[in-house]
Amino acid sequence: MGGEEITSPNALPMKGGDGPYSYTKNSYCQRDALDNIKEMINEAIAENLDIKHLSPITNTFRIADLGCSVGPNTFTSMHDIMEATELKYQSQGLISKIPEFQVFFNDHTANDFNTLFTSFPPDKQYFAAGVPGSFYIRLFPKASLHFVHSSFALHYLSKLPKEITDINSPAWNKGKISYPSSSKEVVEAYASQFAIDFESFLNARAEELVCGGLMVLIMTGIPDGSSRFQAVNATLDILGYCLMDMAKMGLVSEAKVDSFNFPVYSPFCQEVKELLGRNRCFNIERFELVTRTRDVAVTNAPAVTKHTRAITEEMIKQHFGSEIIDELYDRVFHKLEEFPQFLDAIFKRSTQLFVVLKRQSIMD
Amino acid sequence: MGGEEITSPNALPMKGGDGPYSYTKNSYCQRDALDNIKEMINEAIAENLDIKHLSPITNTFRIADLGCSVGPNTFTSMHDIMEATELKYQSQGLISKIPEFQVFFNDHTANDFNTLFTSFPPDKQYFAAGVPGSFYIRLFPKASLHFVHSSFALHYLSKLPKEITDINSPAWNKGKISYPSSSKEVVEAYASQFAIDFESFLNARAEELVCGGLMVLIMTGIPDGSSRFQAVNATLDILGYCLMDMAKMGLVSEAKVDSFNFPVYSPFCQEVKELLGRNRCFNIERFELVTRTRDVAVTNAPAVTKHTRAITEEMIKQHFGSEIIDELYDRVFHKLEEFPQFLDAIFKRSTQLFVVLKRQSIMD
Repeated sequence: MGGEEITSPNALPMKGGDGPYSYTKNSYCQRDALDNIKEMINEAIAENLDIKHLSPITNTFRIADLGCSVGPNTFTSMHDIMEATELKYQSQGLISKIPEFQVFFNDHTANDFNTLFTSFPPDKQYFAAGVPGSFYIRLFPKASLHFVHSSFALHYLSKLPKEITDINSPAWNKGKISYPSSSKEVVEAYASQFAIDFESFLNARAEELVCGGLMVLIMTGIPDGSSRFQAVNATLDILGYCLMDMAKMGLVSEAKVDSFNFPVYSPFCQEVKELLGRNRCFNIERFELVTRTRDVAVTNAPAVTKHTRAITEEMIKQHFGSEIIDELYDRVFHKLEEFPQFLDAIFKRSTQLFVVLKRQSIMD
Repeated sequence: MGGEEITSPNALPMKGGDGPYSYTKNSYCQRDALDNIKEMINEAIAENLDIKHLSPITNTFRIADLGCSVGPNTFTSMHDIMEATELKYQSQGLISKIPEFQVFFNDHTANDFNTLFTSFPPDKQYFAAGVPGSFYIRLFPKASLHFVHSSFALHYLSKLPKEITDINSPAWNKGKISYPSSSKEVVEAYASQFAIDFESFLNARAEELVCGGLMVLIMTGIPDGSSRFQAVNATLDILGYCLMDMAKMGLVSEAKVDSFNFPVYSPFCQEVKELLGRNRCFNIERFELVTRTRDVAVTNAPAVTKHTRAITEEMIKQHFGSEIIDELYDRVFHKLEEFPQFLDAIFKRSTQLFVVLKRQSIMD
């Protein structure tokens, strides 16, 4: 409740407002992936949402989107979930029992809720609320939610493992801003933090979901045994290269690059499966690695640069100041043009994990 | 739900952020009044909150603050309500049944929710959510709230009666920005709008409160038979004088003053009593006109000027532009110094209405 909010720099706000580099205008990569996934959510609701035995019987169906950012993807997802749930009531001959819907939009306190609130769809058919705070802790009362959705948010760690910025630690992450090409110790530090966070996430949701309630998680996930260089990691890698180039030219301090790391981690499927297995509160209804089939139109250099900027600019600014921003993303753009294999990597290797969990009736 | 949000200029955002003229830093007049009222809320909960028969039995006690602005008053009020409710459970030997608390902070979409969210007390013992939207429509699911609180918000009308800016109407409010010294037609137009809004408010809350749930309303209220020049009206009156002075000097356009009005109305007690009587969903547990005993320290010219600026600046800016702001409030300050009877009027005539309503079990 109070006091546990994770503060900057670990909170990773998307760029707010609706300017040319805002998340609102540059979240099409997520959107595209969600289009593939809409049908899978519909299936989860049709097959796994047992509305007759949802406990407690309710006149209000409460949905939470955890890590919602500022839209518009969250509005589409919430609309789709609501529609699929209504369809389920209809298909079971329970039209008269269709509840009212209340949707909770959650993200870090640093998220631009003002922008989120002013962009609510005018025809929304639910009662809306914003819930600021880290989803690695409790955000809702016990057994108060019927459906939890989280899309492309769980790769953000609650904090950086502190050893990676400790110059005296074997896990010091010198000259990098992410972990894929770092030492074993750095990778392990990241993986351990992810495990702690994901367990906290599951424990909090186990308390908040009613028995029989569903949770759909869409998260970055890497095929077991393949390279750790994947979508979001590749993006951060390019950014890291450009920062180091600028450090070498004396445009940013190398020490600043050394002390900067993105608290972002993409697990292998096996890691997620193991953590889910350890938590006894949920049945795994579906666990699937989905390949993204993104349009080439959104994987060209200008598009990827804009997208990268939308998701990283705020944090770069906080650490390096705003004066380097334009040059940095200009370099990202040229690097992408120069090494098209980066674009190829982002495009080809794009996978995500789709998980459907049902809250079990008896607590462990 | 969707589409009913009341938009600017009728939404009256308090000045956001935490600068020297922000509402956060200048809401002490409300705070002072609330201090007198805390004890009355405690009494309402002790005497009128029937937790044993609150329907439905709940593990979550949901409180809404309607028109919360950006703090800090709302945090104090919510804390006090929570504490008094816990005390009630304890006094009835129900310590083990004390529920979790969820608090919904509501205000217009134009409210600065980002500031509100970043200023949550770090030790708050409740789950918090922000709910953007006009409280003159439904904001919450049916029977989902146990306690509704609204303090100094119901004098804001949902919109201006349109005839008062209609040059061809007998209710055209020429040369004024409020109604107390206007024609009978103008006053009636304001009063009718208040009646419509207050009824909408009661109807929406009747749906949202559980049976036995309480609603505490603290609102501007004028003793029957006395002058309409009271606290908030007096403040707007001074502002109106200053704007007309500036119009005469050609510093603002007179037509702009003519077309500008604050959607603010302070009812006589009798008006509120009649409207409550017409709505059959609530029992009136308490209805009391309370006299404010404000400290002289907060009713001197600089303090009143700052307070006036905090609650009016945003709307003045929207209509007249920001270039007149400093001069306008400078004039307000000098007017207050020149005519100390204004300060006296604000000080002496300060009353508010304290109303406790209980949601009845059977709908009309």
